[in-house]
Amino acid sequence: MSTAAAKTEIQMLIDTYRQAVSAKDVDTIMSFYDESIVAFDAIQALQFVGKAAYHQHWQACMQMCPGPHMFEFQAPTITAGEDVAFAHWLAQCGGTNEQGEMQSCWMRASAGYRRINGQWRIVHEHWSAPFDPASGAALFDLKP
Amino acid sequence: MSTAAAKTEIQMLIDTYRQAVSAKDVDTIMSFYDESIVAFDAIQALQFVGKAAYHQHWQACMQMCPGPHMFEFQAPTITAGEDVAFAHWLAQCGGTNEQGEMQSCWMRASAGYRRINGQWRIVHEHWSAPFDPASGAALFDLKP
Repeated sequence: MSTAAAKTEIQMLIDTYRQAVSAKDVDTIMSFYDESIVAFDAIQALQFVGKAAYHQHWQACMQMCPGPHMFEFQAPTITAGEDVAFAHWLAQCGGTNEQGEMQSCWMRASAGYRRINGQWRIVHEHWSAPFDPASGAALFDLKP
Repeated sequence: MSTAAAKTEIQMLIDTYRQAVSAKDVDTIMSFYDESIVAFDAIQALQFVGKAAYHQHWQACMQMCPGPHMFEFQAPTITAGEDVAFAHWLAQCGGTNEQGEMQSCWMRASAGYRRINGQWRIVHEHWSAPFDPASGAALFDLKP
């Protein structure tokens, strides 16, 4: 597989991942991860190790945001070899508050991929917001 | 280059990077980055694009923590192809406060690498602490 073809496949994986999160389709989201996934998510824990732990976390996240939500990505930067690839992008994430208003912020995402039996799988994921070192508060007002 | 050899080289790069940060040697730290570096650092900004911007940020970080500091890594998980690799690890980071006491917390790190002209270079880096979604406060008390 050429690295150009690999890049195209990773771009498609990121697109379908984004659509699955927008649709709150946890089963489809989980289908992109390898069993060995180690995820550094933006909230609550240092890490989620393995698919079962991350599945539970995704389900909890979807319950936390019951209304319509926003999950838009800037164009990812993809670096791909034949069987190993990684990507990073900024994402605008949001949800509806109790007044039904959409509130959103920009987050950072990085992902590591391996091609296993001909299929690209996410083996590592890192989502975060930066924080203010003076106050310790996450910075939700930053814009690209 | 075999992927086992690539893994060994990435491990060495991470070791020397850790030592350079511990020694507050910004010139050596900068030597590991490619010009195209896009860094998602734990503090202050969504991203630092390019070596000049990230250099300035590293210098500001070192001025922010003038005393002795702590920068210890758990064993990184490294996924390496021939010319593309990525790694992730947990790190214990700390510094001395105004009373001269060491205060530390656990952070998450991910990095993406490319082998360019026979040398591995960091092209992407992501450091963060997770936050509490209820309060928006970064979580500095979590332990692996």
